[in-house]
Amino acid sequence: MEKRGTFKASAAALRTRNPIRELIEGLDLRSHPNKQVIPLSIGDPTIFGNLRAADVVNEAVVDAVRSGRANGYPPAVGTEVAREAVAKAANTAIEEAARVARRLSSRHTSGGPTPDKPRNGTHRDWAQTAFTSAAHYEKRDVILASGASHALDLCFSALLDPEDNVLLPSLSFPLYETICAYLGAEVRRYPLDPERGWQATGLEPGGATDRLVDERTVCIVVNNPMNPTGSVYERKHLQDIVEFAERHRLVILADEIYGGMVFHRRHADGSGPVGPLDAPPIGCLARNVPVLTVDGLAKRFLVPGWRMGWILIHDPTPDQQFSVIRRALEGLSMKILGPNSLVQAALPVILSKTSREWYEHVRTTLARQAQFAYEKLSSIRGLHVPSPPHGAMYVLVCLRNNHMSGLEFVQRLMAEESVLVLPGECFGAPPGYFRVTFCAPIDKLSEAFSRIANFCDRHLRAA
Amino acid sequence: MEKRGTFKASAAALRTRNPIRELIEGLDLRSHPNKQVIPLSIGDPTIFGNLRAADVVNEAVVDAVRSGRANGYPPAVGTEVAREAVAKAANTAIEEAARVARRLSSRHTSGGPTPDKPRNGTHRDWAQTAFTSAAHYEKRDVILASGASHALDLCFSALLDPEDNVLLPSLSFPLYETICAYLGAEVRRYPLDPERGWQATGLEPGGATDRLVDERTVCIVVNNPMNPTGSVYERKHLQDIVEFAERHRLVILADEIYGGMVFHRRHADGSGPVGPLDAPPIGCLARNVPVLTVDGLAKRFLVPGWRMGWILIHDPTPDQQFSVIRRALEGLSMKILGPNSLVQAALPVILSKTSREWYEHVRTTLARQAQFAYEKLSSIRGLHVPSPPHGAMYVLVCLRNNHMSGLEFVQRLMAEESVLVLPGECFGAPPGYFRVTFCAPIDKLSEAFSRIANFCDRHLRAA
Repeated sequence: MEKRGTFKASAAALRTRNPIRELIEGLDLRSHPNKQVIPLSIGDPTIFGNLRAADVVNEAVVDAVRSGRANGYPPAVGTEVAREAVAKAANTAIEEAARVARRLSSRHTSGGPTPDKPRNGTHRDWAQTAFTSAAHYEKRDVILASGASHALDLCFSALLDPEDNVLLPSLSFPLYETICAYLGAEVRRYPLDPERGWQATGLEPGGATDRLVDERTVCIVVNNPMNPTGSVYERKHLQDIVEFAERHRLVILADEIYGGMVFHRRHADGSGPVGPLDAPPIGCLARNVPVLTVDGLAKRFLVPGWRMGWILIHDPTPDQQFSVIRRALEGLSMKILGPNSLVQAALPVILSKTSREWYEHVRTTLARQAQFAYEKLSSIRGLHVPSPPHGAMYVLVCLRNNHMSGLEFVQRLMAEESVLVLPGECFGAPPGYFRVTFCAPIDKLSEAFSRIANFCDRHLRAA
Repeated sequence: MEKRGTFKASAAALRTRNPIRELIEGLDLRSHPNKQVIPLSIGDPTIFGNLRAADVVNEAVVDAVRSGRANGYPPAVGTEVAREAVAKAANTAIEEAARVARRLSSRHTSGGPTPDKPRNGTHRDWAQTAFTSAAHYEKRDVILASGASHALDLCFSALLDPEDNVLLPSLSFPLYETICAYLGAEVRRYPLDPERGWQATGLEPGGATDRLVDERTVCIVVNNPMNPTGSVYERKHLQDIVEFAERHRLVILADEIYGGMVFHRRHADGSGPVGPLDAPPIGCLARNVPVLTVDGLAKRFLVPGWRMGWILIHDPTPDQQFSVIRRALEGLSMKILGPNSLVQAALPVILSKTSREWYEHVRTTLARQAQFAYEKLSSIRGLHVPSPPHGAMYVLVCLRNNHMSGLEFVQRLMAEESVLVLPGECFGAPPGYFRVTFCAPIDKLSEAFSRIANFCDRHLRAA
């Protein structure tokens, strides 16, 4: 039989779009010929050389290479040893979060009665019960993936049929939408409050987010700490989201790739830091709905190119209703067969031997850069930073006078000042926002912000 | 609105099956308590330790780790340098294939006139024209992927809409079917001739394969050298397949992950070897239809766990009709973001500095083991090897008396002799076949074949 004359691509492939790339490709991003480009655009912590992987991490991979024993096929879901190491690290992070919560709780409640503290039992008992995690991971709850992107792809693919819908934050990492488009699933955006740490709003019955849910709503995505805002949801707000998901029986898809990259609390005037934020993994709060948590080495260990991500499966439902999803994820993982075997072999050492000092060094470096970015950008006339960043590597900035779109701002800033930032449009923001990555060292940031100030002086004050 | 009470997985995920795993899980594969297991089952060349990656390959990765410069995000389709290196290696392989062809041609034609030799022009001119490749790759024709499995997933996903159909060999690597099932595409099996090197049959107009094609047929998969048969298609047969694809305007999806793992020709009595086979990459024969070639480091470089694969795009159509597929592949690659950055950084050294001696050592080792496997298995009463293996790492064996299925044979062989092989059913074979991987060293193979002979003596002769 005769075939049509031209070759075609699948409809699903053609609707697989990268909004960042499409928007950026539509811009003329020539820089100023006499000014060196300062890229504050992509979320890659390695590009300036000020943040480097720990030696122990590198040497773990070197050892794996030289052993000659880590070249074969691992199981599609990852080696048992690597999965065990991930489960253990996740449990350790949960214990750490519980310790923080107990310390904060005892500080807040010392000296007076606690309203919802049970009448019988000491304070110590109460705190221990309140902060007992709903989640505890075994190696069978871990599926390794080729980066957190692949982990997200596996999760969405396991959950979503065409015409299903997903609740995404009104601003988010564009890959969620890319994958949903490929799958033919509908994206519904839940509103965030820019002035209150970009928290989700309208979760209460009849509220704006509540009204988005129908019988085809499968899951809600929570990205904490959050890209592109740098915001961090604390326990109270996470509990609100969990209750919302429980009320609607939605799976929670938790993107916690920036987990652990949380800065300390500051006083309202920016002074401090005064102590840790209470931002536990959301999985440990969910007692009635399943949570798929996506995480990986990329950001916290400063090796995004290594493509080592994973999924943690938390199913607290009484009759393991989620086992069908578990099987679906295992089935899907066979299509691509998991991440690089050398990094898998190195994973136990990476996760257990990277020193606390190294983490603290990275965290305080980023926190200092975040605070610097927040102060400098807030002080530029014409710009407004609705909420300071408390984690991750980003701050989202608003143009006060909305006569310039984010796209136009980005293009003209590059042309005149050779500073590259990303337009808010890439993340689904309304016109008038741009995202700054604060991974660069202070001197680079300082130079970039001076140039942005000059630019705003010329263009935004006049408006 | 109320949601249904249980959580569901997507239909696509649930139809993503791994036939090997399902068949194997259905078997009781307990080994004999007093005999050590000899696994001749999976296609992993690293498990016995007799075949090891080259030092230069390992050290290239070590250098990438220690440089600290290969930890960031590469572009989704791979770094320019790595893609350039792959294109160059592919072009070198094509030139090498042309040299072999010219040598064989001059040997065959010396001393007499060649029927289809043009009347004008010397023999040298003619040979050079005849063996000019249709394909020459630039870096833009290369897309890196997280292993050849991911490369296959990208190709099928870019090409196939639900209800489209694909021509697969009647025996094949099960992942093709797994991916097609996920995509909702139909698999149609074209017949192979076991006694004639497992060549495709019925390609002629009105033949059995020809009649499979309809207006929803998108591509034909050609796996050369072939899993699970170890067969190698030579130029003449590849040309027949190309002509078939051109007649029907089918995309050729060439799985050449075993490319280069081709043994030398032998005399009919098994003596020899007498010289190379003429088995060029099929891309260099296609002048009117596009070819997507999937390849990677896994088999030829003995590092399957490293997950470094790629796609070569060859589009000889006059008006670049395939550019829509190129864009589709680029779009899909953004979902997962390509392979490990360390291996990408090492790729130029791996592909250009691995010594010819090392390749030859691996090839002659495998060829010796293949020949040994063929001779020993053929000599066992009750077994029949329809065609000897000429490449890859496998030989497909037939049980002469079909009273035992491949599944039953595998289970009982394991229980009684602790030798693990795979049932032909895993690859779509009719009952009565099993696949042997001949990566093990001769002493292991020898012991395994003795045990298989004992088993057959007990069970198959009686039939």
